[in-house]
Amino acid sequence: MQRFINNPDEVVEDTIKGFVKAHSDLVRLADNPRVVVSKHAPVKGKVGIITGGGSGHEPAFVGYTGRNMLDAVAVGELFSSPTAKSFADAMREANGGKGVVCLYGNYAGDNMSVKMAVRLAEKEGIEVATVVANDDVCSAPAEERHKRRGVAGEIFMWKVGGAKAATGASLEEVRATAQRAIDNCRSVGVGLGPCTLPAVGHPNFRIEPGTMEVGIGHHGEPGVRVEPLKSADEVARSMCAIVLDDHNLPAGSEVVVLVSGLGATPLNELYILNDTIEREITAGGLTIHRTFVGNYFTSLEMVGATLTVMALDAELKALIDADASCTVAL
Amino acid sequence: MQRFINNPDEVVEDTIKGFVKAHSDLVRLADNPRVVVSKHAPVKGKVGIITGGGSGHEPAFVGYTGRNMLDAVAVGELFSSPTAKSFADAMREANGGKGVVCLYGNYAGDNMSVKMAVRLAEKEGIEVATVVANDDVCSAPAEERHKRRGVAGEIFMWKVGGAKAATGASLEEVRATAQRAIDNCRSVGVGLGPCTLPAVGHPNFRIEPGTMEVGIGHHGEPGVRVEPLKSADEVARSMCAIVLDDHNLPAGSEVVVLVSGLGATPLNELYILNDTIEREITAGGLTIHRTFVGNYFTSLEMVGATLTVMALDAELKALIDADASCTVAL
Repeated sequence: MQRFINNPDEVVEDTIKGFVKAHSDLVRLADNPRVVVSKHAPVKGKVGIITGGGSGHEPAFVGYTGRNMLDAVAVGELFSSPTAKSFADAMREANGGKGVVCLYGNYAGDNMSVKMAVRLAEKEGIEVATVVANDDVCSAPAEERHKRRGVAGEIFMWKVGGAKAATGASLEEVRATAQRAIDNCRSVGVGLGPCTLPAVGHPNFRIEPGTMEVGIGHHGEPGVRVEPLKSADEVARSMCAIVLDDHNLPAGSEVVVLVSGLGATPLNELYILNDTIEREITAGGLTIHRTFVGNYFTSLEMVGATLTVMALDAELKALIDADASCTVAL
Repeated sequence: MQRFINNPDEVVEDTIKGFVKAHSDLVRLADNPRVVVSKHAPVKGKVGIITGGGSGHEPAFVGYTGRNMLDAVAVGELFSSPTAKSFADAMREANGGKGVVCLYGNYAGDNMSVKMAVRLAEKEGIEVATVVANDDVCSAPAEERHKRRGVAGEIFMWKVGGAKAATGASLEEVRATAQRAIDNCRSVGVGLGPCTLPAVGHPNFRIEPGTMEVGIGHHGEPGVRVEPLKSADEVARSMCAIVLDDHNLPAGSEVVVLVSGLGATPLNELYILNDTIEREITAGGLTIHRTFVGNYFTSLEMVGATLTVMALDAELKALIDADASCTVAL
């Protein structure tokens, strides 16, 4: 394991300490050291926006904390859900008196922790609404969308939710708009190499050299097929086909595009993928409003990339373009 | 090679095509497809700022093109200097009538190409000044600083140069301020894993598992020592010792810090390094004004990290904080 770590059991503690030190202009640590809070939070009279998830996906989730973005983030162990207590503490930190919307991904552990946290928060009089991201196309068929996992589409959901809350909208308005954002997202992942949890010391799934796994999840969840590694052009076309077929958007639709690396893929290769992705999307009669390329939602040192396409309407477009500050260029 | 590429000989073309498509709000391609130009350039009455360098270091160099940043960038092959023609074309694109400052790194190929490009540009009446970055401490002893390579300190030099030019300063003022920025930078790299040029197909240097190379260059240039891989805490302390000993700043000095991944190191590990880096720097009586952590200057899928510390004065501090737009959060 060629890694920069100290005690393998303290990777998350050490990460969060270094993160808060680097970004003390944007964030602070709550009394609960597994909750990162925006320096601006809570904002009185604004709906609070929170999320939470396993660590190892940096800059997700903590890196999206900031002004007009996430107010607080519950931090889990590597690839594990945060506790109910951490989600509840994040809700307390984010509540400016107008309630809190929790925008998180569809994983069993997160669902359970959030459910319990909502009960804890509501006992204290904090109103909570939730939106569950399920943008990962290959994780379940279209007719069972509620079973799909949440992946990089969460970033657009957070941006939209944060921007909507900043307008002074009500809890229900923020919830509904964030829900529309994730409903409008479709994502797919392609894996070329696995990752290793430091405390385990070896990869917990395999991708044979010379092959790739299409539809892979953020934690190595199996995809729809393993096939010989193809050219970037062919990979990008496969990714676009999966996302656009499921999306089935009418010609003339406007979209935003996110091409994220999974951790160990060089940035230049994401741009190589984007060359074809742009061609495929526009060839289908869609218009790209903006494209984001980089390590936006990773899985430790996994080799691979994800594509997310979100369909825009006038409000979503304005919210995606709204002014916000976090550790990531958005 | 588990990589997203098409023709290995066209990696740079494909990268730049995908880059310009993703960031068409910020950049355009010149007639010379190896020159990326800011949408705002040339700005009449403003000193133009350019750089150039080999590809494979993304987001360097092209990702720093933008408003109040680089006006134009000459793009080389992977790990190879751009041609003199590309540097000269970048100078032409950036010239708003007040001359151009070329802020680049100290490598034989770049030195030669820039020298020839300056001659070409001056023949056309474009005044050019140059600053050569040499922040990589381990590449030569302090008394031969002119032999040191330029690495991630270039990013601070570009930010300062771009911001100074935006104030309407003269060619000589911009040159002198950018020179002061890089004079105030010290960097060090630690490598845990090599990288592979796609057209070669195997790593062009080795780092044995279980070892690390301290002082390694951005292209795998040998460091000062190969030693057993240590804990993140020990690695960070070694990096700080190398940079701070060479810097020898008086207590009370204010600095900015950049911790960059080399391409395949997960972001969370850079934060783990930063936890100790912050402690070491402040323990020496220095004050950290801002910290940047991420993949700012990479080497394909090399595993490793660099540390850059720049000493501030009042002007450099204001210029580092000046408003600017490029593809990277700065």
